[in-house]
Amino acid sequence: MKLFKRVTIIGLGLIGGSLGLAIKKAGLAKEVIGVSRRMSTIRGAKAIRAVDSATLDIKKSVEGSDLVILTAPVLTIINIAKKIAGCLKKGAIVIDAGSTKKTIVSKIEAAFPKTVYFVGSHPIAGSERSGVTSADKDLFKGAYCILTKSARTHAESIARIKKFWEALGMKVEIMSPDDHDETVSRLSHLPHAIAVALSNTCAKCDLRMAAGGFKDTTRISSGAPELWKDIFTTNRKNIIKDIVKYKKELSKIEKALRNNKDAELLRLLRKAKSIRDSI
Amino acid sequence: MKLFKRVTIIGLGLIGGSLGLAIKKAGLAKEVIGVSRRMSTIRGAKAIRAVDSATLDIKKSVEGSDLVILTAPVLTIINIAKKIAGCLKKGAIVIDAGSTKKTIVSKIEAAFPKTVYFVGSHPIAGSERSGVTSADKDLFKGAYCILTKSARTHAESIARIKKFWEALGMKVEIMSPDDHDETVSRLSHLPHAIAVALSNTCAKCDLRMAAGGFKDTTRISSGAPELWKDIFTTNRKNIIKDIVKYKKELSKIEKALRNNKDAELLRLLRKAKSIRDSI
Repeated sequence: MKLFKRVTIIGLGLIGGSLGLAIKKAGLAKEVIGVSRRMSTIRGAKAIRAVDSATLDIKKSVEGSDLVILTAPVLTIINIAKKIAGCLKKGAIVIDAGSTKKTIVSKIEAAFPKTVYFVGSHPIAGSERSGVTSADKDLFKGAYCILTKSARTHAESIARIKKFWEALGMKVEIMSPDDHDETVSRLSHLPHAIAVALSNTCAKCDLRMAAGGFKDTTRISSGAPELWKDIFTTNRKNIIKDIVKYKKELSKIEKALRNNKDAELLRLLRKAKSIRDSI
Repeated sequence: MKLFKRVTIIGLGLIGGSLGLAIKKAGLAKEVIGVSRRMSTIRGAKAIRAVDSATLDIKKSVEGSDLVILTAPVLTIINIAKKIAGCLKKGAIVIDAGSTKKTIVSKIEAAFPKTVYFVGSHPIAGSERSGVTSADKDLFKGAYCILTKSARTHAESIARIKKFWEALGMKVEIMSPDDHDETVSRLSHLPHAIAVALSNTCAKCDLRMAAGGFKDTTRISSGAPELWKDIFTTNRKNIIKDIVKYKKELSKIEKALRNNKDAELLRLLRKAKSIRDSI
């Protein structure tokens, strides 16, 4: 199903590279063009056939493209959008793969002419690995993708983008940028902060003896710091609110221990098990 | 290498069942006897050949055994030890697989006659799964096992038990019960408390959209609540101390967010990555 003639993927890391592989596998475009700042990345993307061609020239790469996909840290996505705003063809659709949406959607909508359509997208798929060498054609399969709908969202474009992500095997949910950021703060950004703090608590531990529990609980703290800095700073209020809420939950365990309330402790352990088992 | 003639495993859950399979596979004993409170568990253990024979009668099961292994929640281990204290043959070695050691070692040493030898053991292997149906002959391979040495520990017995766990593929460390409890609080009990609090924070979340990050960070909160209640209550002081330390680390992230200290945020993210990547 050729949904687009020409697709440009800006940014060829884990997400951009995996998108190229997945789009080509699903046959969603006649031509996939990749863009990176580094020749080594371009060579890597070509070697795994994630793109048909690739260039260092962002502005030229989007000329004539029906779909432009921005994959980069959140603040870089916004900068790239501003850079290409004047080069997009009339009627082009631009999407992103950023992990926060409120800042991205408002800044990009303000920067774009009325003749091009932006649809905020967040494929909730990824890994603590990074780089085009970790690209995986099945990265998106079975996972959720949140699309954002704002006052300016173009109905036909969001419908087409919904089809696009579904063709890659994703389950699509549509919500406002605000609701998106609140949802993923709890499910993704708070867990990241928690994992980072646990790794940092263990700066002086003998980690040789760390077993599966420690490894799993801290795994995501290996994620790219620059990427996460942008996520945290563009979802600041929600994450602060959730950290406060989380610390209260942790304090319930601490208090039950301090006050020898073993029945309360058991209740908290049972509640957590039943929530986790429901996934 | 037959290290023992007759081994009795009391408790046939994930650990007891896996031990039976591993001992038989390594040929460490002439005979493995299993003990459970439930006939269904006995049937399950026999069906997977984790034991040569099994019984509901704890006291009879240990008569004539060279090695008795106690696998159960921490407080149950202590109760079982008291129950069998008078039935053990002279020179028998008793070990456990409990996740805390200070309480276990002091209570069991006080309950045992001088003619039998207790060696506190903590194989740091496990899973959020439980029950003999999850038993795995390779559960212990490559993982660490901590043995505790107290003033009363019998030198020959601890040397033999070291050989025993090593024959199952484990890397053995020897330390005091106090040092053990401090070490595992940070590496295992704190992560568990953290995972439990995260699951409980998300009681009202739409968990359909939870991705790998959330799942990994909360995985261990699916562990058996009764088992963890005993662990928490017998390592109370260390866990409280570590929760306090952890909340300070989490507050550093919160403060960096509140005060727009993005460079500090990046520093915390980078530090965590370097610690986690070192494992």
